[in-house]
Amino acid sequence: MRFKISTKGFNDIVDITGEVATALKYSKIKDGICVVFCPGSTVGLTTIEAEPNLIEDFKEFLEKLVPSNRPYRHDRTWGEANAFSHILSALIKPFLVIPVEDGKLILGTWQQVVLVDFDSRPREREILIKVIGK
Amino acid sequence: MRFKISTKGFNDIVDITGEVATALKYSKIKDGICVVFCPGSTVGLTTIEAEPNLIEDFKEFLEKLVPSNRPYRHDRTWGEANAFSHILSALIKPFLVIPVEDGKLILGTWQQVVLVDFDSRPREREILIKVIGK
Amino acid sequence: MRFKISTKGFNDIVDITGEVATALKYSKIKDGICVVFCPGSTVGLTTIEAEPNLIEDFKEFLEKLVPSNRPYRHDRTWGEANAFSHILSALIKPFLVIPVEDGKLILGTWQQVVLVDFDSRPREREILIKVIGK
Repeated sequence: MRFKISTKGFNDIVDITGEVATALKYSKIKDGICVVFCPGSTVGLTTIEAEPNLIEDFKEFLEKLVPSNRPYRHDRTWGEANAFSHILSALIKPFLVIPVEDGKLILGTWQQVVLVDFDSRPREREILIKVIGK
Repeated sequence: MRFKISTKGFNDIVDITGEVATALKYSKIKDGICVVFCPGSTVGLTTIEAEPNLIEDFKEFLEKLVPSNRPYRHDRTWGEANAFSHILSALIKPFLVIPVEDGKLILGTWQQVVLVDFDSRPREREILIKVIGK
Repeated sequence: MRFKISTKGFNDIVDITGEVATALKYSKIKDGICVVFCPGSTVGLTTIEAEPNLIEDFKEFLEKLVPSNRPYRHDRTWGEANAFSHILSALIKPFLVIPVEDGKLILGTWQQVVLVDFDSRPREREILIKVIGK
């Protein structure tokens, strides 16, 4: 199963828990694992409490860790100035594995599934869901 | 399968290799993958050589990377002062996938499975094990 | 399935996309997931655009994040001076999960599968591939 979302880029964080839960429901699998994957080298998937203040804290952390406004060698290769996006994607990685029981994602009370778009421009992203189990 | 452990919080690192191996044994699966997941947004799972000096090095690294003693926006939301815990959890993520052969986890000689509790207080954590294969 | 590669250590980054694709082909599985795992506590697996300038940017980032030339407690344990390698491995982790459709890895256009050898010396690394599906 696949679904698409739009992002603003620049470490935009989008809560996709609902979309993932819907895809899981369609799979009719009750017990196993749900793999969430976003093809691309400037994007990441993780879980976080998707609370606005924390989202801002996390974005600030990412910007400090890999600043977007300094020069990188990669920026000379394509002229896209998104080396920071690639570095963050290689660090966070664009996949998650979540357990499934009774046909539901097992997540903590304050734990949401989020896509982080590190790219330096708005993007449309396609997310793949693979549910393995019975 | 599930098991519980107690942690001290503040980047406490607990070796859970034995518990994971025991859960794998109960599954009776000989070949496939073992998914380890801890529900929650202030916890992480990874592998490391669980040697006391290295554990201290890793804890020092985590504290420098996301200091626990500076203000964050999230701390104003709930008054829990654990924004650093959430940021580290979003970075390290609370899951692992480990190959299984001959009914055993395939790990390096110096590689243990550890839970890192980033939260700002002692916690009881529940770990889920999903073994997929035959 | 397993295959071996040689690395130079010191954050050497090796593109293993072709080897993983070959192992997937041998599995004859058309739809599911491909788990890539490298046993060890001084190695990581991730995806990145394996372009020489970006590879240098990522290596520079890793060296800044966890400097190899400062003292760590672990270095006193074994005298190997590779604590930085262990810290980076615990952060990046040595596994990946990639979706499989029509017998092929689903990756972005500019997304390659790479092994990063954080160790402080050349190594031979064995990579395990587990393909789950049908």
